[in-house]
Parts: sequence; structure tokens; C-alpha cells
Amino acid sequence: MKALLFDIFGTVVDWRTGIIRAGEAFGAAHGVSLDWPQFADDWRALYQPAMERVRSGGRAFVKLDTLHRENLDTVLARHGVTGIPEPALADLNFAWRRLPPWPDSVSGLTRLKTRYILGTLSNGNISLMVNLAKYGGLPWDVILGAEVAQAYKPTPESYLRSAAALDLPPEEVALVAAHNNDLQAARTVGYKTIFVPRPTEHGPGQTIDLEPAEDWDLVVEDLNDAADKLGC
Amino acid sequence: MKALLFDIFGTVVDWRTGIIRAGEAFGAAHGVSLDWPQFADDWRALYQPAMERVRSGGRAFVKLDTLHRENLDTVLARHGVTGIPEPALADLNFAWRRLPPWPDSVSGLTRLKTRYILGTLSNGNISLMVNLAKYGGLPWDVILGAEVAQAYKPTPESYLRSAAALDLPPEEVALVAAHNNDLQAARTVGYKTIFVPRPTEHGPGQTIDLEPAEDWDLVVEDLNDAADKLGC
Repeated sequence: MKALLFDIFGTVVDWRTGIIRAGEAFGAAHGVSLDWPQFADDWRALYQPAMERVRSGGRAFVKLDTLHRENLDTVLARHGVTGIPEPALADLNFAWRRLPPWPDSVSGLTRLKTRYILGTLSNGNISLMVNLAKYGGLPWDVILGAEVAQAYKPTPESYLRSAAALDLPPEEVALVAAHNNDLQAARTVGYKTIFVPRPTEHGPGQTIDLEPAEDWDLVVEDLNDAADKLGC
Repeated sequence: MKALLFDIFGTVVDWRTGIIRAGEAFGAAHGVSLDWPQFADDWRALYQPAMERVRSGGRAFVKLDTLHRENLDTVLARHGVTGIPEPALADLNFAWRRLPPWPDSVSGLTRLKTRYILGTLSNGNISLMVNLAKYGGLPWDVILGAEVAQAYKPTPESYLRSAAALDLPPEEVALVAAHNNDLQAARTVGYKTIFVPRPTEHGPGQTIDLEPAEDWDLVVEDLNDAADKLGC
């Protein structure tokens, strides 16, 4: 293995906590009272359907920032939230650029970087990933993923073009993810697979991705454990 | 200014010294006796013509690694060098991934990174840039440039698509370069411009790019001076 490519939302950063906090701050500033954990889940629930329109060919590739914003407008409208100034909506959309890393992420990545090329393989666009890395101190060597590949996960192209950008065969690249379906898609095209459970990604009642669903090449407790097991 | 994007070959790394050293090692290993500084200059002399075929539409975009390899084969053939095993040729081509940074590059970039998004805006492809960064300890936030833009400098698209990938207007991006023509092209599309002279890039007899050719937004002595002048 030469490169470790990471899923980001849920695997490296705690998107749900970050979106809840951003929602609370937005609500306080604009007099909006909502169930913010529900708001976070509702916003995220529109993520896959929005990408599916692109994956299925129903829509040309657009950045995830654009999909996030359309979905935000939908969710706020459903909750009857209106009259918010445009800059505040743009700022709330950029909450995805200010998500907290999991406690082990920065230290684990810093160790892993000593032996491997570290990259993002997220559906998030380049600017989102760069700003998120600056916010949280995530030490990537390279930003890859959907925008560079012009294809959303879990299409084969999203993984294959990311490996090709590094001039590596898929067998020399590992995907690190907290989501079994992401790893399944990556394995199908030849990637190595590393599973890290994030049992509170979806909040206290999480029922999915608590355990590895297949015999992944490596299963770790967190990213420091990954560094231990990979000799970093 | 939010982001500083860097020309790489000549501006951040000393390509000529690196290629000369790689040539000498290659020569010693394979019994090839050449004027290695001349070899380095000959190889580099084919760089612009090879990209021009792509820029002019005469050829689809290909990675710089591919152009470098074709040019290497041309230069070796001209010098009558034959019978070299393929892995040795591939390795010599990857000398571009093992070029020494100028003495101020790592410290200057590390300081600049505290206040700005730092990226590459090179004609080098993603894998070349990533490996070069690993080799020299160059702390980029993002790899941009020709491969991401699918356009070689100095086309307007190469600069505009790099800024667009960061969701920044060109006015909030500065190109840092040792080459006046690169800065001229970047300024034309709205970039800020920072000139750093590298008076030995082309060896002891260098005659070009010793001085700024226009009133660039900033002229610095080296990248630590850039950090000083930008308050980092």
C-alpha cells in the first residue's frame, strides 16, 4: 500500500455535531427555533438523493456545495423558515467547512502521513475539503475525490480516477471509511479496505455501520489504532 | 488574498541541480558519459514545445510525466544512448519527483501556511506534485494546476480553473513565481502577483528572470522574505 484515501464525513469529521452546533448558532442569530438534531438529519437525508441524480446521468456534475445549498433551502422551507438574508444562508451552508474532527483524527493522520500518501476521497468538493482541512488541521497530501474524478461515490469511476491521479494501481491504494457500502464499492474495483467504526456518527441511536460487514483488509478502533497496526 | 498558488519548477525546487544529479547517478549505473548539465538543459528545452502541442489543440491533454518521458527518449537518442532497460528509464523520468527545494522553500512555505491556503499551480501532474512534496517536505494544502484544470500554463484556463476550484475570485489568489511570463499571464486574468527571483535556476550563466519585468504586487527575495512581508 502506497496511499491511504479517506472518506471524510463521518469517518474523519463528526458532521452531525458540527451541523447541530451551526444550526443552534444560526437559530440564535435569526430567531429560528427548530429541533436542530432533526434538522441535521433532515439535511443529510437529502444528500444521497441529490447525488443520485448526478450519478444516474439526470444532471451534469455539480459541486457538493451546490447540492448542499439546494438541500438546505428545501429543508428550511419544509420547516417554514423564511426571510433569512442570503449571506446567512451561504454561511450556514458553509458549516460543512467547519466540522470538528473526531478526537483521534489529527494525531492518527499525522502519524500515518509519515509512511503513506494521505488523501481525501470524499464527495465533498475541493474548496470544501481544503477549508475543512484548514479548520481542523487535517494534514492531507492531496485532495482527491468527486470533483477531481467528476463522479460521485460509490461509482467505480470515483475510486478508479482517484487512484489514476496518483498513478497507482487500485491494489496499492486503501480506502479508509466508517461505511461498509463505501468499502464494498472500493473493494469491487480493487482497492484495499480499512474499516473504522464511528458508532455515534448518526447520534446516540445509531443502528448502521456498527460492525464490519465483510472481512475488510484491516479493521481498526480509530486512526491512532490504524497508525499502530500499520507500523507508523 | 486568501490563497497563494505556486509555480514549482524553478520557483520552489531547483530542477536543474536535481536533474544533473540524477543524470550523474544514471550515468554511473549504466556506463553513460554525458555532459549532464547540458543534458538537463536539453531535456528542459523540449518542455515548452511539448506542452505547446497540447495548448494549441494539436494533441489531447496528457500528464506532464508523459511529455517528460517522450522528451527524455528524444534527448537520449540524440546523444546516442541506447540499450537502457525500461525500469531505469522510468526511474530517470521520475527524477522530476525528487528535486531539491531551494533552501528557503520549506521554512517559508511553513510560515505562509499559517495565514493562507497554499497550493501548487504547476504544469506538473498530480502524482508528480504529490511525490515531490513528500520528497522535499513541501506542506501544500492542495494540489492544483494543469492536471486539475486540464490545461497547461500559461493558458487563461489554467489559472481561472485553479481559482474556481477554490471558489475564489482571481483577485483573492496570488501566483508566486520566478518567471515573469507566468506572472504576466496570471495578472491578465486577475490574479495578484508575487515575484521571487531564482538567479541560478538555469545555472551560473542565467540571463533571464533576474529582475521583475513589471510592477508586480509584491517582489520578495525568497519565501522567508515573502512570509516577513505578508506578516506570517
